[in-house]
Amino acid sequence: MICGGKMMWREFNIQTKRQTEFIDITHFAAETVSTSGIGEGACLVFVPHTTAGVTINENADPDVTADIQSALAVMVPSGPFRHGEGNSHAHIKASLIGSSVMLPVRGGRLDPGTWQGVYFCEFDGPRRRRVMMTCIADR
Amino acid sequence: MICGGKMMWREFNIQTKRQTEFIDITHFAAETVSTSGIGEGACLVFVPHTTAGVTINENADPDVTADIQSALAVMVPSGPFRHGEGNSHAHIKASLIGSSVMLPVRGGRLDPGTWQGVYFCEFDGPRRRRVMMTCIADR
Amino acid sequence: MICGGKMMWREFNIQTKRQTEFIDITHFAAETVSTSGIGEGACLVFVPHTTAGVTINENADPDVTADIQSALAVMVPSGPFRHGEGNSHAHIKASLIGSSVMLPVRGGRLDPGTWQGVYFCEFDGPRRRRVMMTCIADR
Repeated sequence: MICGGKMMWREFNIQTKRQTEFIDITHFAAETVSTSGIGEGACLVFVPHTTAGVTINENADPDVTADIQSALAVMVPSGPFRHGEGNSHAHIKASLIGSSVMLPVRGGRLDPGTWQGVYFCEFDGPRRRRVMMTCIADR
Repeated sequence: MICGGKMMWREFNIQTKRQTEFIDITHFAAETVSTSGIGEGACLVFVPHTTAGVTINENADPDVTADIQSALAVMVPSGPFRHGEGNSHAHIKASLIGSSVMLPVRGGRLDPGTWQGVYFCEFDGPRRRRVMMTCIADR
Repeated sequence: MICGGKMMWREFNIQTKRQTEFIDITHFAAETVSTSGIGEGACLVFVPHTTAGVTINENADPDVTADIQSALAVMVPSGPFRHGEGNSHAHIKASLIGSSVMLPVRGGRLDPGTWQGVYFCEFDGPRRRRVMMTCIADR
Protein backbone atom coordinates (compact mmCIF):
# COMPACT_ATOMS: atom_id res chain seq x y z
CA MET A 1 0.00 0.00 0.00
CA ILE A 2 1.47 3.30 -1.08
CA CYS A 3 0.44 6.46 0.71
CA GLY A 4 2.39 9.64 -0.04
CA GLY A 5 5.14 7.54 -1.51
CA LYS A 6 5.60 5.49 1.61
CA MET A 7 5.50 1.70 1.70
CA MET A 8 2.62 0.65 3.91
CA TRP A 9 2.70 -3.12 3.95
CA ARG A 10 5.30 -5.78 4.58
CA GLU A 11 5.45 -9.54 4.63
CA PHE A 12 7.75 -11.65 6.77
CA ASN A 13 8.64 -15.32 6.79
CA ILE A 14 9.07 -17.41 9.91
CA GLN A 15 10.47 -20.91 10.22
CA THR A 16 8.97 -22.52 13.32
CA LYS A 17 10.87 -25.31 15.02
CA ARG A 18 8.43 -27.04 17.30
CA GLN A 19 4.85 -28.30 17.11
CA THR A 20 3.66 -25.59 19.50
CA GLU A 21 5.67 -22.41 19.83
CA PHE A 22 5.10 -18.70 20.47
CA ILE A 23 7.59 -16.46 18.61
CA ASP A 24 8.02 -12.77 19.41
CA ILE A 25 7.41 -10.79 16.19
CA THR A 26 7.07 -7.34 17.77
CA HIS A 27 10.22 -6.18 15.95
CA PHE A 28 8.61 -7.00 12.58
CA ALA A 29 5.63 -4.80 13.44
CA ALA A 30 7.86 -2.02 14.77
CA GLU A 31 10.00 -2.17 11.61
CA THR A 32 6.90 -2.04 9.40
CA VAL A 33 5.64 1.04 11.21
CA SER A 34 8.97 2.87 11.07
CA THR A 35 9.51 1.96 7.39
CA SER A 36 6.00 3.16 6.52
CA GLY A 37 6.70 6.60 7.92
CA ILE A 38 3.15 6.93 9.22
CA GLY A 39 2.57 9.26 12.13
CA GLU A 40 -0.74 8.22 13.63
CA GLY A 41 -2.88 5.22 12.79
CA ALA A 42 -2.90 1.48 13.34
CA CYS A 43 -0.99 -1.62 12.28
CA LEU A 44 -2.76 -4.85 11.33
CA VAL A 45 -0.76 -8.02 11.95
CA PHE A 46 -2.38 -10.88 10.03
CA VAL A 47 -1.49 -14.57 9.98
CA PRO A 48 -2.65 -16.28 6.74
CA HIS A 49 -2.73 -19.79 8.18
CA THR A 50 -5.44 -21.97 9.73
CA THR A 51 -3.31 -23.78 12.30
CA ALA A 52 -1.51 -20.72 13.65
CA GLY A 53 -2.57 -17.44 15.22
CA VAL A 54 -1.30 -14.20 16.73
CA THR A 55 -1.72 -12.74 20.19
CA ILE A 56 -0.38 -9.98 22.41
CA ASN A 57 0.93 -10.93 25.83
CA GLU A 58 3.80 -10.40 28.27
CA ASN A 59 7.34 -10.34 26.88
CA ALA A 60 9.23 -9.94 30.16
CA ASP A 61 8.92 -13.52 31.46
CA PRO A 62 8.92 -16.29 28.81
CA ASP A 63 7.08 -18.51 31.30
CA VAL A 64 3.89 -16.55 30.52
CA THR A 65 3.67 -17.72 26.90
CA ALA A 66 4.68 -21.24 28.00
CA ASP A 67 1.75 -21.20 30.44
CA ILE A 68 -0.67 -20.05 27.71
CA GLN A 69 0.47 -22.95 25.51
CA SER A 70 0.08 -25.51 28.30
CA ALA A 71 -3.35 -24.14 29.27
CA LEU A 72 -4.56 -24.41 25.66
CA ALA A 73 -3.29 -28.01 25.53
CA VAL A 74 -5.45 -28.81 28.58
CA MET A 75 -8.48 -26.77 27.48
CA VAL A 76 -8.91 -28.10 23.96
CA PRO A 77 -10.46 -31.58 24.03
CA SER A 78 -8.42 -34.45 22.59
CA GLY A 79 -11.30 -35.53 20.37
CA PRO A 80 -12.74 -37.60 18.84
CA PHE A 81 -12.52 -35.32 15.80
CA ARG A 82 -13.68 -35.83 12.22
CA HIS A 83 -10.88 -34.06 10.31
CA GLY A 84 -8.56 -36.75 9.03
CA GLU A 85 -5.25 -34.90 9.25
CA GLY A 86 -5.03 -35.28 13.02
CA ASN A 87 -4.45 -31.58 13.66
CA SER A 88 -7.95 -30.45 14.63
CA HIS A 89 -6.58 -29.24 17.98
CA ALA A 90 -4.41 -26.75 16.06
CA HIS A 91 -7.36 -25.43 14.00
CA ILE A 92 -9.39 -25.01 17.21
CA LYS A 93 -6.58 -23.14 18.99
CA ALA A 94 -6.17 -20.87 15.93
CA SER A 95 -9.85 -19.81 16.13
CA LEU A 96 -9.66 -19.29 19.91
CA ILE A 97 -6.55 -17.10 19.71
CA GLY A 98 -7.45 -15.36 16.44
CA SER A 99 -5.75 -14.65 13.14
CA SER A 100 -4.95 -10.97 13.63
CA VAL A 101 -4.15 -8.25 16.10
CA MET A 102 -4.51 -4.53 15.52
CA LEU A 103 -2.11 -2.15 17.26
CA PRO A 104 -2.30 1.61 17.71
CA VAL A 105 0.46 3.73 16.16
CA ARG A 106 1.24 7.10 17.76
CA GLY A 107 3.94 9.62 17.01
CA GLY A 108 5.36 7.30 14.36
CA ARG A 109 5.82 4.42 16.78
CA LEU A 110 4.01 1.21 17.63
CA ASP A 111 2.34 1.72 21.01
CA PRO A 112 1.32 -1.66 22.45
CA GLY A 113 2.03 -0.88 26.11
CA THR A 114 5.09 -1.42 28.28
CA TRP A 115 5.35 -5.19 28.66
CA GLN A 116 3.52 -6.25 25.53
CA GLY A 117 4.93 -8.47 22.85
CA VAL A 118 3.23 -9.54 19.63
CA TYR A 119 3.50 -13.33 19.37
CA PHE A 120 3.16 -15.58 16.35
CA CYS A 121 1.43 -18.69 17.71
CA GLU A 122 2.44 -21.94 16.01
CA PHE A 123 0.05 -24.80 16.78
CA ASP A 124 1.02 -27.32 14.09
CA GLY A 125 4.71 -26.93 13.38
CA PRO A 126 7.38 -27.07 12.49
CA ARG A 127 6.46 -25.21 9.30
CA ARG A 128 7.48 -22.27 7.16
CA ARG A 129 4.98 -19.48 7.90
CA ARG A 130 4.09 -15.99 6.71
CA VAL A 131 2.98 -12.87 8.58
CA MET A 132 1.42 -9.91 6.79
CA MET A 133 1.63 -6.38 8.21
CA THR A 134 -0.55 -3.54 6.93
CA CYS A 135 -0.29 0.02 8.22
CA ILE A 136 -3.36 2.24 8.17
CA ALA A 137 -2.48 5.92 8.33
CA ASP A 138 -4.38 9.15 8.66
CA ARG A 139 -3.13 10.53 5.33
CA MET B 1 -18.63 5.06 3.31
CA ILE B 2 -17.82 6.94 0.14
CA CYS B 3 -14.19 7.44 -0.82
CA GLY B 4 -13.43 8.81 -4.26
CA GLY B 5 -16.96 7.91 -5.30
CA LYS B 6 -16.59 4.27 -4.37
CA MET B 7 -18.93 2.45 -2.03
CA MET B 8 -16.94 1.29 0.95
CA TRP B 9 -19.37 -0.60 3.14
CA ARG B 10 -21.93 -3.30 2.68
CA GLU B 11 -24.38 -5.17 4.83
CA PHE B 12 -25.54 -8.75 4.27
CA ASN B 13 -28.33 -10.84 5.78
CA ILE B 14 -28.00 -14.48 6.70
CA GLN B 15 -30.71 -16.92 7.70
CA THR B 16 -29.17 -19.61 9.89
CA LYS B 17 -30.86 -22.98 10.06
CA ARG B 18 -29.42 -24.76 13.07
CA GLN B 19 -28.62 -23.88 16.68
CA THR B 20 -24.90 -24.07 16.01
CA GLU B 21 -23.62 -23.55 12.50
CA PHE B 22 -20.59 -22.09 10.71
CA ILE B 23 -21.44 -20.46 7.37
CA ASP B 24 -18.81 -19.50 4.80
CA ILE B 25 -19.17 -15.76 4.08
CA THR B 26 -15.87 -15.26 2.26
CA HIS B 27 -17.73 -14.40 -0.95
CA PHE B 28 -19.50 -11.50 0.82
CA ALA B 29 -16.15 -10.06 1.87
CA ALA B 30 -14.64 -10.61 -1.58
CA GLU B 31 -17.65 -8.93 -3.22
CA THR B 32 -17.41 -5.97 -0.82
CA VAL B 33 -13.74 -5.51 -1.67
CA SER B 34 -14.26 -5.74 -5.42
CA THR B 35 -17.31 -3.42 -5.34
CA SER B 36 -15.38 -0.87 -3.27
CA GLY B 37 -12.68 -0.62 -5.87
CA ILE B 38 -9.97 -0.19 -3.24
CA GLY B 39 -6.47 -1.22 -4.17
CA GLU B 40 -4.65 -1.68 -0.91
CA GLY B 41 -6.02 -1.67 2.61
CA ALA B 42 -8.09 -3.86 4.88
CA CYS B 43 -11.62 -5.19 5.23
CA LEU B 44 -13.43 -5.31 8.58
CA VAL B 45 -16.04 -8.06 8.90
CA PHE B 46 -18.25 -7.28 11.91
CA VAL B 47 -21.07 -9.33 13.42
CA PRO B 48 -23.54 -7.13 15.36
CA HIS B 49 -24.89 -9.93 17.55
CA THR B 50 -24.05 -11.21 21.03
CA THR B 51 -24.70 -14.91 20.44
CA ALA B 52 -22.79 -15.19 17.16
CA GLY B 53 -19.23 -14.49 16.04
CA VAL B 54 -16.88 -14.63 13.09
CA THR B 55 -13.65 -16.55 12.56
CA ILE B 56 -11.20 -17.51 9.83
CA ASN B 57 -10.40 -21.17 9.37
CA GLU B 58 -9.97 -23.93 6.79
CA ASN B 59 -12.47 -24.08 3.92
CA ALA B 60 -11.16 -27.21 2.18
CA ASP B 61 -12.53 -29.83 4.59
CA PRO B 62 -15.89 -29.03 6.26
CA ASP B 63 -14.93 -31.41 9.09
CA VAL B 64 -12.62 -28.69 10.44
CA THR B 65 -15.42 -26.26 11.29
CA ALA B 66 -17.49 -29.18 12.62
CA ASP B 67 -14.60 -30.05 14.95
CA ILE B 68 -14.35 -26.44 16.17
CA GLN B 69 -18.06 -26.47 17.00
CA SER B 70 -17.86 -29.78 18.86
CA ALA B 71 -14.74 -28.66 20.78
CA LEU B 72 -16.49 -25.44 21.88
CA ALA B 73 -19.48 -27.51 23.04
CA VAL B 74 -17.15 -29.55 25.27
CA MET B 75 -15.03 -26.59 26.45
CA VAL B 76 -17.78 -24.23 27.58
CA PRO B 77 -19.22 -25.39 30.92
CA SER B 78 -22.88 -26.35 31.01
CA GLY B 79 -23.53 -24.02 33.93
CA PRO B 80 -25.07 -23.28 36.32
CA PHE B 81 -25.55 -19.83 34.77
CA ARG B 82 -27.48 -16.79 35.98
CA HIS B 83 -28.83 -15.44 32.67
CA GLY B 84 -32.45 -16.55 32.43
CA GLU B 85 -32.70 -17.05 28.66
CA GLY B 86 -30.79 -20.32 28.76
CA ASN B 87 -28.32 -19.27 26.05
CA SER B 88 -25.33 -18.24 28.18
CA HIS B 89 -23.22 -20.85 26.37
CA ALA B 90 -23.81 -18.93 23.13
CA HIS B 91 -22.79 -15.57 24.66
CA ILE B 92 -19.62 -17.20 26.05
CA LYS B 93 -18.70 -18.76 22.69
CA ALA B 94 -19.27 -15.39 20.99
CA SER B 95 -16.71 -13.70 23.28
CA LEU B 96 -14.21 -16.55 22.83
CA ILE B 97 -14.42 -16.48 19.04
CA GLY B 98 -14.83 -12.70 18.70
CA SER B 99 -17.18 -10.35 16.88
CA SER B 100 -14.91 -9.28 14.03
CA VAL B 101 -12.07 -10.25 11.76
CA MET B 102 -9.86 -7.90 9.82
CA LEU B 103 -8.46 -9.02 6.47
CA PRO B 104 -5.69 -7.54 4.35
CA VAL B 105 -6.57 -6.29 0.86
CA ARG B 106 -3.83 -6.26 -1.78
CA GLY B 107 -3.97 -5.46 -5.46
CA GLY B 108 -7.73 -4.96 -5.20
CA ARG B 109 -8.35 -8.43 -3.82
CA LEU B 110 -9.00 -9.97 -0.43
CA ASP B 111 -5.86 -11.80 0.61
CA PRO B 112 -6.68 -14.21 3.43
CA GLY B 113 -4.34 -17.05 2.46
CA THR B 114 -4.85 -20.14 0.33
CA TRP B 115 -7.15 -22.34 2.42
CA GLN B 116 -8.82 -19.66 4.49
CA GLY B 117 -12.53 -19.10 4.69
CA VAL B 118 -14.32 -16.39 6.68
CA TYR B 119 -17.03 -18.09 8.75
CA PHE B 120 -20.12 -16.61 10.36
CA CYS B 121 -20.46 -18.55 13.62
CA GLU B 122 -24.05 -19.11 14.75
CA PHE B 123 -24.26 -20.20 18.38
CA ASP B 124 -27.97 -19.61 19.13
CA GLY B 125 -29.92 -20.21 15.96
CA PRO B 126 -31.83 -20.53 13.88
CA ARG B 127 -32.11 -16.75 13.49
CA ARG B 128 -31.99 -14.02 10.89
CA ARG B 129 -28.55 -12.37 11.21
CA ARG B 130 -26.60 -9.42 9.80
CA VAL B 131 -22.96 -9.04 8.82
CA MET B 132 -21.38 -5.63 8.28
CA MET B 133 -18.37 -5.17 5.99
CA THR B 134 -16.28 -2.00 6.01
CA CYS B 135 -13.35 -1.40 3.66
CA ILE B 136 -10.50 0.80 4.77
CA ALA B 137 -8.46 2.09 1.86
CA ASP B 138 -5.21 3.93 1.46
CA ARG B 139 -6.72 7.02 -0.19
CA MET C 1 -4.31 11.63 15.25
CA ILE C 2 -5.37 14.75 13.40
CA CYS C 3 -7.33 14.35 10.20
CA GLY C 4 -8.94 17.46 8.73
CA GLY C 5 -8.43 19.23 12.04
CA LYS C 6 -10.36 16.63 13.99
CA MET C 7 -9.00 14.76 16.99
CA MET C 8 -8.92 11.10 16.14
CA TRP C 9 -7.65 9.32 19.21
CA ARG C 10 -8.41 9.35 22.89
CA GLU C 11 -7.14 7.61 25.99
CA PHE C 12 -9.21 6.79 29.06
CA ASN C 13 -8.29 5.61 32.55
CA ILE C 14 -10.23 3.00 34.49
CA GLN C 15 -9.88 2.03 38.14
CA THR C 16 -11.03 -1.54 38.53
CA LYS C 17 -12.27 -2.68 41.93
CA ARG C 18 -12.30 -6.46 41.86
CA GLN C 19 -9.96 -9.23 40.72
CA THR C 20 -12.27 -10.13 37.85
CA GLU C 21 -14.66 -7.55 36.49
CA PHE C 22 -16.27 -6.52 33.18
CA ILE C 23 -16.80 -2.76 32.88
CA ASP C 24 -18.99 -1.22 30.18
CA ILE C 25 -16.86 1.29 28.21
CA THR C 26 -19.21 1.77 25.27
CA HIS C 27 -19.70 5.43 26.22
CA PHE C 28 -15.94 6.05 25.89
CA ALA C 29 -16.00 4.66 22.35
CA ALA C 30 -19.15 6.62 21.48
CA GLU C 31 -17.60 9.81 22.85
CA THR C 32 -14.40 9.23 20.88
CA VAL C 33 -16.38 8.78 17.68
CA SER C 34 -18.53 11.88 18.22
CA THR C 35 -15.52 14.01 19.23
CA SER C 36 -13.59 12.88 16.17
CA GLY C 37 -16.29 14.11 13.85
CA ILE C 38 -15.76 11.21 11.46
CA GLY C 39 -18.66 10.18 9.28
CA GLU C 40 -17.87 6.65 8.12
CA GLY C 41 -15.09 4.36 9.22
CA ALA C 42 -14.13 2.27 12.21
CA CYS C 43 -13.06 2.63 15.83
CA LEU C 44 -10.26 0.56 17.35
CA VAL C 45 -10.57 -0.06 21.09
CA PHE C 46 -7.20 -1.29 22.39
CA VAL C 47 -6.26 -2.44 25.88
CA PRO C 48 -2.48 -2.05 26.52
CA HIS C 49 -2.31 -4.64 29.31
CA THR C 50 -1.44 -8.34 29.43
CA THR C 51 -3.85 -9.39 32.18
CA ALA C 52 -6.92 -7.59 30.81
CA GLY C 53 -8.86 -7.67 27.55
CA VAL C 54 -11.84 -6.23 25.75
CA THR C 55 -14.95 -7.89 24.34
CA ILE C 56 -18.37 -7.06 22.95
CA ASN C 57 -21.38 -8.73 24.53
CA GLU C 58 -24.89 -8.12 25.82
CA ASN C 59 -25.51 -5.00 27.89
CA ALA C 60 -29.19 -5.58 28.73
CA ASP C 61 -28.77 -8.26 31.40
CA PRO C 62 -25.63 -7.99 33.60
CA ASP C 63 -25.92 -11.72 34.29
CA VAL C 64 -24.47 -12.35 30.81
CA THR C 65 -21.07 -10.86 31.60
CA ALA C 66 -21.15 -12.57 35.02
CA ASP C 67 -21.69 -15.89 33.25
CA ILE C 68 -18.77 -15.23 30.87
CA GLN C 69 -16.51 -14.56 33.85
CA SER C 70 -17.61 -17.71 35.68
CA ALA C 71 -17.23 -19.84 32.55
CA LEU C 72 -13.67 -18.55 32.00
CA ALA C 73 -12.87 -19.38 35.64
CA VAL C 74 -13.96 -22.98 35.01
CA MET C 75 -12.38 -23.28 31.55
CA VAL C 76 -8.87 -22.06 32.34
CA PRO C 77 -6.93 -24.76 34.19
CA SER C 78 -5.72 -23.95 37.70
CA GLY C 79 -2.16 -24.94 36.81
CA PRO C 80 0.49 -25.95 37.61
CA PHE C 81 2.00 -22.89 35.91
CA ARG C 82 5.60 -21.71 35.61
CA HIS C 83 5.13 -17.92 35.84
CA GLY C 84 6.02 -16.93 39.40
CA GLU C 85 3.56 -14.07 39.89
CA GLY C 86 0.58 -16.39 40.35
CA ASN C 87 -1.54 -14.64 37.72
CA SER C 88 -1.05 -16.94 34.73
CA HIS C 89 -4.82 -17.50 34.61
CA ALA C 90 -5.24 -13.77 33.91
CA HIS C 91 -2.68 -13.79 31.08
CA ILE C 92 -4.40 -16.82 29.54
CA LYS C 93 -7.85 -15.22 29.73
CA ALA C 94 -6.44 -12.04 28.15
CA SER C 95 -5.22 -14.00 25.10
CA LEU C 96 -8.50 -15.92 24.82
CA ILE C 97 -10.65 -12.77 24.93
CA GLY C 98 -8.24 -10.56 22.99
CA SER C 99 -6.69 -7.13 23.41
CA SER C 100 -8.81 -5.16 20.96
CA VAL C 101 -12.17 -4.84 19.26
CA MET C 102 -12.87 -2.96 16.06
CA LEU C 103 -16.30 -1.34 15.61
CA PRO C 104 -17.94 0.06 12.51
CA VAL C 105 -18.82 3.77 12.45
CA ARG C 106 -21.71 4.90 10.22
CA GLY C 107 -23.33 8.28 9.85
CA GLY C 108 -21.06 9.68 12.54
CA ARG C 109 -22.14 7.14 15.13
CA LEU C 110 -20.77 3.95 16.60
CA ASP C 111 -22.83 1.09 15.20
CA PRO C 112 -22.28 -2.02 17.30
CA GLY C 113 -25.81 -3.44 17.15
CA THR C 114 -28.82 -3.04 19.40
CA TRP C 115 -27.86 -4.90 22.57
CA GLN C 116 -24.10 -4.68 22.31
CA GLY C 117 -21.83 -3.21 24.94
CA VAL C 118 -18.04 -2.87 24.74
CA TYR C 119 -16.58 -4.34 27.94
CA PHE C 120 -13.20 -3.80 29.51
CA CYS C 121 -12.31 -7.21 30.98
CA GLU C 122 -10.26 -7.08 34.17
CA PHE C 123 -8.69 -10.42 35.01
CA ASP C 124 -6.07 -9.40 37.61
CA GLY C 125 -7.43 -6.41 39.50
CA PRO C 126 -7.95 -4.23 41.23
CA ARG C 127 -5.64 -2.01 39.16
CA ARG C 128 -5.49 1.33 37.42
CA ARG C 129 -5.90 0.61 33.68
CA ARG C 130 -5.80 2.43 30.35
CA VAL C 131 -7.90 2.07 27.20
CA MET C 132 -6.81 3.56 23.88
CA MET C 133 -9.33 4.50 21.20
CA THR C 134 -8.31 5.24 17.61
CA CYS C 135 -10.77 6.33 14.92
CA ILE C 136 -10.07 5.45 11.31
CA ALA C 137 -11.98 7.65 8.90
CA ASP C 138 -12.59 7.76 5.20
CA ARG C 139 -10.91 11.17 4.79
